[in-house]
Amino acid sequence: MIELHHCFGARSFRPLWTLEEMGLNYRLHLLPFPPRFASPGYKDINPLGTVPLFVDGDLRMTESSAISHYIARRYGPSPLAVEPDDTEYGAFLNWTHFGEATLTFPQTLVLRYRHFENAERQNAQVADDYARWFLARLRAVESVLQDRDHLCAGRFTVADISVGYALKLAGVIGLNSEFGPRVQAYWSGLQERDGYSRARAAEEHAAAVLGPLDPFGRMVEDAS
Amino acid sequence: MIELHHCFGARSFRPLWTLEEMGLNYRLHLLPFPPRFASPGYKDINPLGTVPLFVDGDLRMTESSAISHYIARRYGPSPLAVEPDDTEYGAFLNWTHFGEATLTFPQTLVLRYRHFENAERQNAQVADDYARWFLARLRAVESVLQDRDHLCAGRFTVADISVGYALKLAGVIGLNSEFGPRVQAYWSGLQERDGYSRARAAEEHAAAVLGPLDPFGRMVEDAS
Repeated sequence: MIELHHCFGARSFRPLWTLEEMGLNYRLHLLPFPPRFASPGYKDINPLGTVPLFVDGDLRMTESSAISHYIARRYGPSPLAVEPDDTEYGAFLNWTHFGEATLTFPQTLVLRYRHFENAERQNAQVADDYARWFLARLRAVESVLQDRDHLCAGRFTVADISVGYALKLAGVIGLNSEFGPRVQAYWSGLQERDGYSRARAAEEHAAAVLGPLDPFGRMVEDAS
Repeated sequence: MIELHHCFGARSFRPLWTLEEMGLNYRLHLLPFPPRFASPGYKDINPLGTVPLFVDGDLRMTESSAISHYIARRYGPSPLAVEPDDTEYGAFLNWTHFGEATLTFPQTLVLRYRHFENAERQNAQVADDYARWFLARLRAVESVLQDRDHLCAGRFTVADISVGYALKLAGVIGLNSEFGPRVQAYWSGLQERDGYSRARAAEEHAAAVLGPLDPFGRMVEDAS
């Protein structure tokens, strides 16, 4: 049985989305954010203290876009993966990496220095630097969508899941108001997918069991 | 003919290293850092303004670890790639992503806020935050090397090139003094490879033509 450790709204949503697109069986473990502090035992099973942790037999993976690629290839054949003999294979690998390394990491700087750090460690300059950095790189997505509906291979693939999650996160931190028209339409289309809806429902269901969470997946203290 | 746009010491060293490991023909374009300002025409061929830009016929790629994976698969069969039916395929994908998304991006924060920004925009807190962040994640490499010489599949692969470049960069910014003993031995071993030496020689040769560069690949003004 595949096991996925996930925080509400975190990049571990990528493998969750992939599992639901493929209709695979899995066990979801939803942890309050940040897992290394909010779930003290978690570092015993993942010393990095990060999500995702994906377990498939003896295999353990922690990189969300790599896990999505792995699932599509290991549990395929699936249209979600692009094969090495396809002329779009290079573009597929590129966008799959781009979604995380180029479009997600900069947003974690905005999260950290605008939202998570306490007041004296917050830093508007750094948050603004990386909000701008993200939006500059996002122009590559606006540009590629000029003549296509998906990033590569003429269909929805793991590359769209990788980049799509970055667009989802941008909504949480308020950068989506700066999306270009093609990125906006593309992101609306992705959210209409059944696989996306099922992944969101699975996450909501697990969250309801856990208790009230804020938009960043942190437990909300009961004030009553 | 494959073309690679590269800055001295930049993450575009990954595809350069991969090309040399595989003995492929390519044309190297060395640009002073940062390319978007130091080579005004570069944004015409790569609107992102970043390196690498890798061109192979109609294919254009910009994510260094993805390019290395692509080269090994497209121009293989090569021991540098791990095949999907190999039990180590998931680990291969994971480390290939980890080297860039988890081990390289945090170091670019140290570069930016300790070295590249002008005095009033430098930020010791952020540089220190991400130096610590990098070293915490690097423990996963120290740990996996406990019972093996390479990251996965019992041999040198693109995963080692991805993580190896992150260790190379750590040397430039002075974080290598904090390497654990296994990471130190692993990184020494990688540098002894013929492919690594040839890639370094190709980079040095191109740099000699360009003119004096500082450790970050920036042109040094002739003070005479």
